[in-house]
Amino acid sequence: MTLSPLEKTGILIEALPYIRQFYGKTVVIKYGGHAMVNCELKKAVMQDAVLMHLVGMRPVIVHGGGPEITSMLGRLGKQSQFIQGQRVTDAETMEIVEMVLVGKINKEIVANIHRYGGKAIGLCGKDGHLIEARKQVAHIQKDGEEMDLDLGYVGQVERVNPGIIETVIAEGYIPVVAPIGVGPDGESYNINADLVAGELAVALQADKLVLLTDVEGILADRDDPASLISSLEVGRVPELIQQGVIAGGMIPKVNCCIRALEGGVKKTHIIDGRIPHSILLEVFTDTGVGTMVVPG
Amino acid sequence: MTLSPLEKTGILIEALPYIRQFYGKTVVIKYGGHAMVNCELKKAVMQDAVLMHLVGMRPVIVHGGGPEITSMLGRLGKQSQFIQGQRVTDAETMEIVEMVLVGKINKEIVANIHRYGGKAIGLCGKDGHLIEARKQVAHIQKDGEEMDLDLGYVGQVERVNPGIIETVIAEGYIPVVAPIGVGPDGESYNINADLVAGELAVALQADKLVLLTDVEGILADRDDPASLISSLEVGRVPELIQQGVIAGGMIPKVNCCIRALEGGVKKTHIIDGRIPHSILLEVFTDTGVGTMVVPG
Amino acid sequence: MTLSPLEKTGILIEALPYIRQFYGKTVVIKYGGHAMVNCELKKAVMQDAVLMHLVGMRPVIVHGGGPEITSMLGRLGKQSQFIQGQRVTDAETMEIVEMVLVGKINKEIVANIHRYGGKAIGLCGKDGHLIEARKQVAHIQKDGEEMDLDLGYVGQVERVNPGIIETVIAEGYIPVVAPIGVGPDGESYNINADLVAGELAVALQADKLVLLTDVEGILADRDDPASLISSLEVGRVPELIQQGVIAGGMIPKVNCCIRALEGGVKKTHIIDGRIPHSILLEVFTDTGVGTMVVPG
Amino acid sequence: MTLSPLEKTGILIEALPYIRQFYGKTVVIKYGGHAMVNCELKKAVMQDAVLMHLVGMRPVIVHGGGPEITSMLGRLGKQSQFIQGQRVTDAETMEIVEMVLVGKINKEIVANIHRYGGKAIGLCGKDGHLIEARKQVAHIQKDGEEMDLDLGYVGQVERVNPGIIETVIAEGYIPVVAPIGVGPDGESYNINADLVAGELAVALQADKLVLLTDVEGILADRDDPASLISSLEVGRVPELIQQGVIAGGMIPKVNCCIRALEGGVKKTHIIDGRIPHSILLEVFTDTGVGTMVVPG
Amino acid sequence: MTLSPLEKTGILIEALPYIRQFYGKTVVIKYGGHAMVNCELKKAVMQDAVLMHLVGMRPVIVHGGGPEITSMLGRLGKQSQFIQGQRVTDAETMEIVEMVLVGKINKEIVANIHRYGGKAIGLCGKDGHLIEARKQVAHIQKDGEEMDLDLGYVGQVERVNPGIIETVIAEGYIPVVAPIGVGPDGESYNINADLVAGELAVALQADKLVLLTDVEGILADRDDPASLISSLEVGRVPELIQQGVIAGGMIPKVNCCIRALEGGVKKTHIIDGRIPHSILLEVFTDTGVGTMVVPG
Amino acid sequence: MTLSPLEKTGILIEALPYIRQFYGKTVVIKYGGHAMVNCELKKAVMQDAVLMHLVGMRPVIVHGGGPEITSMLGRLGKQSQFIQGQRVTDAETMEIVEMVLVGKINKEIVANIHRYGGKAIGLCGKDGHLIEARKQVAHIQKDGEEMDLDLGYVGQVERVNPGIIETVIAEGYIPVVAPIGVGPDGESYNINADLVAGELAVALQADKLVLLTDVEGILADRDDPASLISSLEVGRVPELIQQGVIAGGMIPKVNCCIRALEGGVKKTHIIDGRIPHSILLEVFTDTGVGTMVVPG
Repeated sequence: MTLSPLEKTGILIEALPYIRQFYGKTVVIKYGGHAMVNCELKKAVMQDAVLMHLVGMRPVIVHGGGPEITSMLGRLGKQSQFIQGQRVTDAETMEIVEMVLVGKINKEIVANIHRYGGKAIGLCGKDGHLIEARKQVAHIQKDGEEMDLDLGYVGQVERVNPGIIETVIAEGYIPVVAPIGVGPDGESYNINADLVAGELAVALQADKLVLLTDVEGILADRDDPASLISSLEVGRVPELIQQGVIAGGMIPKVNCCIRALEGGVKKTHIIDGRIPHSILLEVFTDTGVGTMVVPG
Repeated sequence: MTLSPLEKTGILIEALPYIRQFYGKTVVIKYGGHAMVNCELKKAVMQDAVLMHLVGMRPVIVHGGGPEITSMLGRLGKQSQFIQGQRVTDAETMEIVEMVLVGKINKEIVANIHRYGGKAIGLCGKDGHLIEARKQVAHIQKDGEEMDLDLGYVGQVERVNPGIIETVIAEGYIPVVAPIGVGPDGESYNINADLVAGELAVALQADKLVLLTDVEGILADRDDPASLISSLEVGRVPELIQQGVIAGGMIPKVNCCIRALEGGVKKTHIIDGRIPHSILLEVFTDTGVGTMVVPG
Repeated sequence: MTLSPLEKTGILIEALPYIRQFYGKTVVIKYGGHAMVNCELKKAVMQDAVLMHLVGMRPVIVHGGGPEITSMLGRLGKQSQFIQGQRVTDAETMEIVEMVLVGKINKEIVANIHRYGGKAIGLCGKDGHLIEARKQVAHIQKDGEEMDLDLGYVGQVERVNPGIIETVIAEGYIPVVAPIGVGPDGESYNINADLVAGELAVALQADKLVLLTDVEGILADRDDPASLISSLEVGRVPELIQQGVIAGGMIPKVNCCIRALEGGVKKTHIIDGRIPHSILLEVFTDTGVGTMVVPG
Repeated sequence: MTLSPLEKTGILIEALPYIRQFYGKTVVIKYGGHAMVNCELKKAVMQDAVLMHLVGMRPVIVHGGGPEITSMLGRLGKQSQFIQGQRVTDAETMEIVEMVLVGKINKEIVANIHRYGGKAIGLCGKDGHLIEARKQVAHIQKDGEEMDLDLGYVGQVERVNPGIIETVIAEGYIPVVAPIGVGPDGESYNINADLVAGELAVALQADKLVLLTDVEGILADRDDPASLISSLEVGRVPELIQQGVIAGGMIPKVNCCIRALEGGVKKTHIIDGRIPHSILLEVFTDTGVGTMVVPG
Repeated sequence: MTLSPLEKTGILIEALPYIRQFYGKTVVIKYGGHAMVNCELKKAVMQDAVLMHLVGMRPVIVHGGGPEITSMLGRLGKQSQFIQGQRVTDAETMEIVEMVLVGKINKEIVANIHRYGGKAIGLCGKDGHLIEARKQVAHIQKDGEEMDLDLGYVGQVERVNPGIIETVIAEGYIPVVAPIGVGPDGESYNINADLVAGELAVALQADKLVLLTDVEGILADRDDPASLISSLEVGRVPELIQQGVIAGGMIPKVNCCIRALEGGVKKTHIIDGRIPHSILLEVFTDTGVGTMVVPG
Repeated sequence: MTLSPLEKTGILIEALPYIRQFYGKTVVIKYGGHAMVNCELKKAVMQDAVLMHLVGMRPVIVHGGGPEITSMLGRLGKQSQFIQGQRVTDAETMEIVEMVLVGKINKEIVANIHRYGGKAIGLCGKDGHLIEARKQVAHIQKDGEEMDLDLGYVGQVERVNPGIIETVIAEGYIPVVAPIGVGPDGESYNINADLVAGELAVALQADKLVLLTDVEGILADRDDPASLISSLEVGRVPELIQQGVIAGGMIPKVNCCIRALEGGVKKTHIIDGRIPHSILLEVFTDTGVGTMVVPG
């Protein structure tokens, strides 16, 4: 890339109003999917977080862990059953999930942020009782009857105590959060990372919630990337679900955005994590790279 | 235990001068051995830390992880070779060590401190670049020649950045530290927990370093528990090593105390972690429960 | 007292939840009666205050002065008349009362707190205009008619300016307050110490008001110490007064508790000051040592 | 006094450079003698202190107590012996001295400062261990031999802990200090107020020490008020003592100034307390009203 | 002026209650008219501001500029038209007005305050966007019809951002403000200094607004200086305007006071700037020197 | 300019290490020459300052004023004589210089910074006595003799009091400084803006001093822009002056850099102000745009 001085300064100046606008603002980023696997994308996400921090924003990263958990369970000969997209998590599985998320992925992200010049702290829901959880039960229909299914140590967020997040942000660290909750007796719960990101955004009264996904965003026509809906008002969601435009794994993501907006988060974004620096593009340019879900 | 009101208040009053003396003082506790396995001892250590914190002290916990690491390696079919008491740590082993220490043991301690009424934050050397490490090489004698042996990801402490510890202490949290260091390229190193505790004590200019062990302390006569040396001046150490009084695993522990004292730590203690609340006894009563190593 | 290590640590651990509960809480202690005369009790009260302070509580001591005032007046050949339990206080008597309370008893307590390791500041109502007072008039029945009797410089609390108390607490001192009020022209007033303690507790929005007395507490059967009422709801007081269960000098003490509760103090206690360390027992154990008066 | 607007503003403007110069400066005032007896003078001293405080200075008052102590001792039938100008103070006398100084005079000054619009706190050496004292022994010559005479509870300053003074000044109070010291066992000592003022000035690194006296200052010719030495360099003192110009009670006052100057106090003044507002005149006008003792 | 010590201290003591009353209070002074031309008066105003600052008040000066602007315009051969007392201000005139006000008068005041021992900062409405302005249009009656007349760059206050004023006050500077506002495109507006002073007083929630004028105040009988109305309730203003008692240039000044009082300023004063130190006299003596306009 | 997302993010990421490096660093920019005349360049300089501020740097702008001063003097019929490149400044000229610099140029820059989203405060040497000056005398050679020539109100920097600069920076404002100094009697002095920038950089212990000029930098061959010396060690300067490589107006600029480096400034730059955003290019890219003068 050999840009002229004029082009170089042009970009910096183009970013100026955005830098100004987001100064001091909190952005919760759900980091997951392809961007956690591909090396170049990994590096780009870390750089984005560091840059946001340097220009005065307050990024908070919540990460998932999918493939590595499955791989470690496989090495130990454990197999998982999935119900409604959630892994049934017995005590032994929970132990592995926690070790991988907290002991491997979380700290790797922390170390990478340091490599790109930031300062980070890895946390899970147990630290400072950050995420209090309770057991989540799946409601399924079987033979025409509603049944409750025990998913084991799958949890939902009961309460967020964001004190430790605020403490480390105030000292200039980027918090990196593994989606593990803590139950009333100190037991661990596996919680969906999108949910954790959403609840954390609410507890921190964040300005933005950004969910990194492996799709372009919400497409009006699933087969046509050009049909991207760049801005979606909450009021239109039920209709789009009915039409099948919002479907499958996208439904909980959209619900997560709605919940965050109701809780006071200003803007929510479902963006394409497969594009390098998609977060920077979203935050610092007009060309959004996904779907923004807004109140209305 | 049915003590009279007089006895009850007697104890509280007896503790008063110690509480006064240690108010605001930092105490680094190396937590390991039997006290990490036995449930009652575990609980007692957590309670001790919480109580110390409540009366104004600043406890910092550094933990080891032995049996659980071996157990997890076993489940994965990995076997470890030990050289000079240190586990040869290849990349795969390192990954497991880190997951167990950081993702399991560390956060379990954090959750337990919360159960007994404290607030804790779990950290490893990557968080805020707390512990920068470099590769450690073992020097052995073989066939009359000195040789260097590669131990893999076994590290030694290069530099401690205690900022994050001070931040969380200032906000009322008890820091719990896993002995993982971070190398120049973000890679992990397995470091002896005694060493980490000692270096952390120096970096924090702690008042006390307390090493929990599975022995009574240093015994003048190894077979006679009554021969406990309760206070040992650094100057006498070489002679006691030569006499075999200080031997085996006790040597690195004593060296760790010496290093801490040289670095400015006020007092160091090697105490018997098998006695419930041995830390409280050491800190708040005259009857020490082990060997204090002091300058001189 | 030769307690085992287990017993010793047992007590410390037993106190833990109470220490946690009262951390940072303000406790106003009315110190008077036998506990001001007996040397062992004196020392115990000072130690209790120092210990409370060390574990993070904020004790405030208000003291009386009875016997020493009478003794000094005697040496000067003055005799006092008492009306409704209150000393008729002419100008000369007031001068003596103030000198004894402020110049002798108050500063002796301050010096003793220092001896037991605390830091204290002695104050009276004139310091920082802490206690503004107005003349109190006794209403008596004589020959079937209501009459006002002039008690001289006996005052009641007009207004508390707790700024100086908060200042010295914030700097780590234990405030010790003599119950002298200041009138609009700078004149001194002798005020009942229970009243001062109660009003101070309200002004500081204290958590606890503790009145040290020379009785077991409120007894259902005056002749049976085993009939102690350990918890008394305010609503039951009128009935107990009518029955003569609460009588004599206990009536103003109970009223003082009621007034404090109405003013926002959380709990009030009338305890037996003749038991050494009764304050510690009350605060740090389940076995209360007197009667707790609570809202209801 | 009917001054024109011009005259009125003239004075305020004249004071301006002095107000500027002394802004934020600490001035320790020894308050004693005639100015403590005469009502108009009393009021003037209080007003001076309040005015100094309002224009940003930090006055600290140390008071004596002479006549009232003698009067109270008289009422109790005690007689005092004086050795080298110091009252031999047995335990009973000490108790009276302390009660009068701390319980009467000190708090009366505090109440008066409030009447003239300031905020004051009365302290003695016991408060916050402000003045630690040790027994002072008089050395006398008798029959050609040097002898030590026990003066009882007459003390000298061992150490000043000025923390509480700084705390109350920082909160906007004027500290008023009674010259009572506290011994190692909490016992009280009667200390010369000039000495206390001097040591306090040193401990606070005061800018000025002002000793109010009942004379014009140091007169070159004792019988000629016009011979006032308005500025005296320390180096000339020995010579003036030898000549008898500095004699009697003036010697310890001058020594007190010298000690203060050596300890870092900037300027010391021996002024005529019989002139109303002599402190204001000294501080805010060129016309000094006494003798300034300066280094040299 | 040879006043006796008694007289000197008398004045200082007389000022005491006023100093106390205004401690920490903000006073906005509109400085203009004769007091900006006469050298002695200039000096007196600077001294008054410095003295007020030294005794803890927070003076803010807003200045006008009349004669110097006219003189500079004359040198450049520009002539001004006045409509309703306001200078029609074309772009070139605006440039000159701003240069004279900001580049000459404002900084001269700043330099003078330094000469009399204060610290000052000169500001105009552009600094920190202190005064946002919008174009003001004059409404006139012509041939029985209402018309709008364009006055050019004459502005009115749209919004005050007092942050920079508070910042410099907090650091001990006296702010000196030139009455230039800034429009939406960064253009300058010439605003009446009385208006700016009034709006600034509201934005700072000042205690006092003082308008220096060239008359005695409001006279009941224009020809009789003895008929000065020293205190005027807002409710009486309409009647006095109708009677012609308040007329001409006094009307906008009184309206400015009313607006300030409605906006929360405590007291407003129209005083005679031709008397030296009239501000000090107003603030520190009972004899006011003009008309105080108060709510009612 | 239609850059791809990749190119856009590329630039932001490229700037990252520089942003990190200069976080919190002070940069003094001498703003003058062509960049003060051309509209596009003006805007670019303001944007650069705002952007630097947003990414955490602390820019300080010192401006010159050349053409506008000459133009205003012309309008008033004043002609200036120049000696050694400095305008002989009589009282009347000084008045005009100050009005133009402080009342026009300075505040115009302030308003422009606000337009581009920053907050600025305009200051001159009189504000907070920022720049104390003394008369500068020119030494010339005439007829083989050395003579002193009076340049009138041309000054040199006597002392910088940077307090007000630090205050406004701390509150988030960009200080804009006009090069007017204040003499002992409050009189104004016209000082070369390069000098002021250099002395301010020393007083603030700035990291960088950037002088905007109208040339490419220092060229080894004056006629070949490709011969730019991008880094120049101070030790080589004398030789280059002798060779005529550094000549004319460049000599004082280089001397100003040397003086700044000796005073503790880290790096100094002489850059080409005719290139838009040359400051950004210098600070945030490797390609410098002028000559860096460094110690050595």
